[in-house]
Amino acid sequence: MTTSPLRPLPPLDPAAAEPFYRQIYDRVRGAIAHAVLKPGDRIPSARALAVELGLARGTVEAAYALLAAEGYILARGQAGTIISPELDPRALVGPVPHRVPTQVAQSFRPDSILPFQMGLPALDAFPRKIWARLGARCARAIQPATMAHPPASGSSALRTEIASYLRLSRGIACSPSQIFVTSGYRQSLQLIAQALFKAGDAIWVENPGFPPTRDLLGHMDLKPVPIPVDADGIDVAEALRLAPHARAAVVTPAHQSPLCLSLSLPRRMALLDWASQGGGWIIEDDYDGEYRYVSRPLPALKSLDRDGRVLYAGTFSKVLFPGLRLAYLVVPEAEVERFDAIMHAFAGGSPELVQAIVAAFIKEGHFARHIQRMRKLYAERRRFAVASLEAILADHLRVDAQPGGMHLVLRLRERRSDRALAARMLENGLYAEALSDWTVSGGHDPALLVNFTNIDSRATADRLAHEILRLI
Amino acid sequence: MTTSPLRPLPPLDPAAAEPFYRQIYDRVRGAIAHAVLKPGDRIPSARALAVELGLARGTVEAAYALLAAEGYILARGQAGTIISPELDPRALVGPVPHRVPTQVAQSFRPDSILPFQMGLPALDAFPRKIWARLGARCARAIQPATMAHPPASGSSALRTEIASYLRLSRGIACSPSQIFVTSGYRQSLQLIAQALFKAGDAIWVENPGFPPTRDLLGHMDLKPVPIPVDADGIDVAEALRLAPHARAAVVTPAHQSPLCLSLSLPRRMALLDWASQGGGWIIEDDYDGEYRYVSRPLPALKSLDRDGRVLYAGTFSKVLFPGLRLAYLVVPEAEVERFDAIMHAFAGGSPELVQAIVAAFIKEGHFARHIQRMRKLYAERRRFAVASLEAILADHLRVDAQPGGMHLVLRLRERRSDRALAARMLENGLYAEALSDWTVSGGHDPALLVNFTNIDSRATADRLAHEILRLI
Repeated sequence: MTTSPLRPLPPLDPAAAEPFYRQIYDRVRGAIAHAVLKPGDRIPSARALAVELGLARGTVEAAYALLAAEGYILARGQAGTIISPELDPRALVGPVPHRVPTQVAQSFRPDSILPFQMGLPALDAFPRKIWARLGARCARAIQPATMAHPPASGSSALRTEIASYLRLSRGIACSPSQIFVTSGYRQSLQLIAQALFKAGDAIWVENPGFPPTRDLLGHMDLKPVPIPVDADGIDVAEALRLAPHARAAVVTPAHQSPLCLSLSLPRRMALLDWASQGGGWIIEDDYDGEYRYVSRPLPALKSLDRDGRVLYAGTFSKVLFPGLRLAYLVVPEAEVERFDAIMHAFAGGSPELVQAIVAAFIKEGHFARHIQRMRKLYAERRRFAVASLEAILADHLRVDAQPGGMHLVLRLRERRSDRALAARMLENGLYAEALSDWTVSGGHDPALLVNFTNIDSRATADRLAHEILRLI
Repeated sequence: MTTSPLRPLPPLDPAAAEPFYRQIYDRVRGAIAHAVLKPGDRIPSARALAVELGLARGTVEAAYALLAAEGYILARGQAGTIISPELDPRALVGPVPHRVPTQVAQSFRPDSILPFQMGLPALDAFPRKIWARLGARCARAIQPATMAHPPASGSSALRTEIASYLRLSRGIACSPSQIFVTSGYRQSLQLIAQALFKAGDAIWVENPGFPPTRDLLGHMDLKPVPIPVDADGIDVAEALRLAPHARAAVVTPAHQSPLCLSLSLPRRMALLDWASQGGGWIIEDDYDGEYRYVSRPLPALKSLDRDGRVLYAGTFSKVLFPGLRLAYLVVPEAEVERFDAIMHAFAGGSPELVQAIVAAFIKEGHFARHIQRMRKLYAERRRFAVASLEAILADHLRVDAQPGGMHLVLRLRERRSDRALAARMLENGLYAEALSDWTVSGGHDPALLVNFTNIDSRATADRLAHEILRLI
């Protein structure tokens, strides 16, 4: 602890193409490969190393997060950070692979939370005591029947609670047997593809749109067709022109991802007509439909589905937290048997303990209360963030007006690369995604996507806006 | 509680083709559809209804388990069983779908544990207090960093513990970065297929063999080729004759599933040679390699893998319990990047809470102790079961000698249908699977597969053997 074992490492190179966090990452990996650092060795805290190297703490944290995520180092809280004791240095000999994807935004998942990090609810405001109490109770209650294989499609208790919640909150009438519990949106989408599509099928996706949707469909040998989004949402007429024989459309009607606009009623009806007449499927990705600040949340598109053409994908990642890995799919009654068969073939169900905690959380009313509280809190945090960003960065960007969602779209006034700025922010410990990375081909002005739900005060928002100003 | 609301239902028909449990299931569904039973209505306990109908309690329990699994009824422990309050009876109008698969064995997952139920460890002997303590501690310890998206390939702590365990117990040298945490064997197999195979690829599978392996490969447009198993395990020479250009082999070297024989060393070497020379892949499904009673567990086939051709699939379902939904895959170093990319595209990782509990359970030594205890207990329970079955059913069946595993193979002496007998046992509250359902085309003598790990005494074993005798 007195001397830094990282001091003998090759110095960082400010002129290098690689950002500092990446240089730190490479040097630590290199030191392990050459046995300069050995399994179990202690390394300095991110704070200490940042001071020593004269870098922002966030830069070192980003490097450490990556090293931890890949298993090279182990953070042990107050006991400090060490090289993973079980690491075999021989595994590292040879060129250091570049596992950091170029589109950092889509895959980079640091171990510690960065300001503006996308996809996260207000983790500081989660009712952790209630959660701990329910967790302890459910862990104590395990018994043979709940230790055996859980039903592949989800526990009866959780499916019942979800059906009841959807009816009250999202206007969706469905029975518990139509609900399929999954490990996340990706599994829900995969399940749909396995049940309903065949290789080569064209699928409309929104442009700009959530990149993992495109990626997953592509990996499954399907053909995602990007359809432009305007102020009313996905342009259905254009979709019919671009891919008239598409099998399905993946849409985000509540708050278009990432532009946060709502799909207009005429467009909703046009989509439903298309699906009913041509046997198409609509996949409604309702990832944060609860969070609308200008009025009551809109009913889900699924609530208008008279002919059983809409598959509704919900998730607990945003309304509870992503570490849960719990989501669900509502399937039209006529397709339930087919989805049951696919679930049995491909999946063994979600962990009983996690399902039991969430079912109890909903049943006892904590869920509804939490959403109400978060709706107020997010409206407030959104105000903080918008006020600071507009006051401090008025010359450089403007903030899109949006009715809801959990992130802001910051339009850059100058024609500069949003990717380069997002990368610079990440190097400096601030998270942002570039709208360009969410767009299939040009057409959109440069913009940053930043989450506001973890900005806990106007002072924090001011500080962060000043940090961005320094980087522009 | 005084009168049975099920009494007005149509009476059961002993002459019908459908077994009694299925008739009960259909009648309850029908009563809900016709509003004879309404959401929230209380129904009699399985015990009371069995008395009333003059049936074995297990028969009614099987019907209730199915109804509960599909969300029609809700068991509330001492508060009794009710029609699910959230059920929409309109969803049931129309013909009652036949969702019970004809091959009951593969998909039927009752809510309560049946005697002989396959795939289950000794649930009564699980250290539940330790589990509850760790569960409570981990639930209390959640914090923003662990509430965010977990690493898609598994938590660093758990991967480190698994790597260390595999080295000590299964002779496998690997780094934590080679370990991919999944939700079960099915997800592991799916991940392999997505990373390494293309549509139409032929894959050797064992015959007889675990039916879900065949099913899953078929669903993924791959071509499972059944290869006969003899006393040495999968017949590699025959495999080369039947499908010389196969891309991969799925094998169960420790205890062949379901015959429990070990893959001989010459066969292991033949498989490895084939894979190394032709670029084939070996998928080692090591579902219960720990449980061997005649000598120390054999090292895994993976421990002999010099050229990085073996993908090792391990699971916590058997050594802990299946409700966890936690398994893992060990991937050759050269393939790690490819699997990382596939994990990021398809999966969001396993729940942080469950991973944290299991990592702590291993790290604190409970895991190694539990396996040691179970190895002794299973050897004892196996003796009980074999002694009773051989004493009481000697005229009708003989028990295969096996070095390990968690189930017995009961060979029927007469040429009768193992499927019919297994179905009769299930109707009467006893679980069994028919070897015929694990065999692709004839050739095998009729046999039952029954799990012995939950048979807690010689007296229980005697009672169960007498019950089978009554049904033969």
